[in-house]
Amino acid sequence: MNENRVRGKFITLEGGEGSGKTTVISRLSAYLDRRSLTHLLTREPGGIEISEKIRDIILDPHNTAMDARTEALLYAAARRQHLVEKVEPALKAGNIVLCDRFVDSSLVYQGYARGLGIEEVWNMNQFAIDSLLPDVTFYLDIEPELGLSRIAASMEREVNRLDLEGLAFHHKVREGYRKLVELYSDRMIVIDASQTPEQIEKDIIQAMEKGILKDL
Amino acid sequence: MNENRVRGKFITLEGGEGSGKTTVISRLSAYLDRRSLTHLLTREPGGIEISEKIRDIILDPHNTAMDARTEALLYAAARRQHLVEKVEPALKAGNIVLCDRFVDSSLVYQGYARGLGIEEVWNMNQFAIDSLLPDVTFYLDIEPELGLSRIAASMEREVNRLDLEGLAFHHKVREGYRKLVELYSDRMIVIDASQTPEQIEKDIIQAMEKGILKDL
Repeated sequence: MNENRVRGKFITLEGGEGSGKTTVISRLSAYLDRRSLTHLLTREPGGIEISEKIRDIILDPHNTAMDARTEALLYAAARRQHLVEKVEPALKAGNIVLCDRFVDSSLVYQGYARGLGIEEVWNMNQFAIDSLLPDVTFYLDIEPELGLSRIAASMEREVNRLDLEGLAFHHKVREGYRKLVELYSDRMIVIDASQTPEQIEKDIIQAMEKGILKDL
Repeated sequence: MNENRVRGKFITLEGGEGSGKTTVISRLSAYLDRRSLTHLLTREPGGIEISEKIRDIILDPHNTAMDARTEALLYAAARRQHLVEKVEPALKAGNIVLCDRFVDSSLVYQGYARGLGIEEVWNMNQFAIDSLLPDVTFYLDIEPELGLSRIAASMEREVNRLDLEGLAFHHKVREGYRKLVELYSDRMIVIDASQTPEQIEKDIIQAMEKGILKDL
């Protein structure tokens, strides 16, 4: 796609378990509403029929033999169709798009944490996004222990053995995001997600007002 | 995958409409049988459950909004799973794999004829095949007019308006294959498919005996 045709702003949020991404994104949406800025709040597969069908294959518990590369290709296919049918039209209409997770999640989860390689997953995803990168990506950074304890608190249960067994994986996810922040320092902004939701929202809005929303 | 682990030989056949690929591949299979060389005759999605489900999405006539890149990613995903579940195990067991179409079909049909770009489709497919290229690829080259007239003859009908409307596309497919032959001259062998099936078979067997089957 031709970057010149894009008039809206493309904002993505990234973060591990318990980083508060979902809460924050709905607060940001309310903020944009207060400012009367037309925007689309979405996440893959986002109700796009083809993308939902692809996601069904990924999540089907019968498909236990699925190779990690097959899975990454399917995520990229679902991403592409969501982009074409939902994100691009909104951007072309001049709107803001707030997307909960995007290509960086594949780089971190499949590329880094699952070991396929950030660069390899990145190269393959280039084909899916066809150079449509976010204008800005907010990474909600939190210690995995704190993130998991938040989930436990919200679910009114103790962190269990299963959560703890996965702790190494969550640390790897955080490590992966921190590598991306170095690689893509031009578009990625780290937000301290150990703060209250109010403060997280405030930090992001401040960054947006100085940057991406400056002229709006 | 580590190339050193592969012990068998991976042979693919490529060609446009009416090139006689299906007839020739079954003749080659019979030849390998006569020589008592254990082999797998396959084509994507090849009965692999995940690959078949992916193919169903591609072919579902309801999915009219499917983007060309989404389609190419889905073909690559189906290719990956077929490779992991069927082709690689056969090669690791030391067998010959005869595959009717492989990555070159994507390069030609999606990359060249549909205009996504050979290089872009190639880069994306690198992720799917993870450096497992065929040892040799026979390209059955034929004038599209002759290929289509063969189909017409075998179906006992005249070439119709629809076939003729697609003629430009079939010429583009041939052009695409000829570009690949230049790019991948180390593994691609052109076979004159205007010949009789007997002669085509003879040419391929001769090439195999001098090359890939020399020490078997």
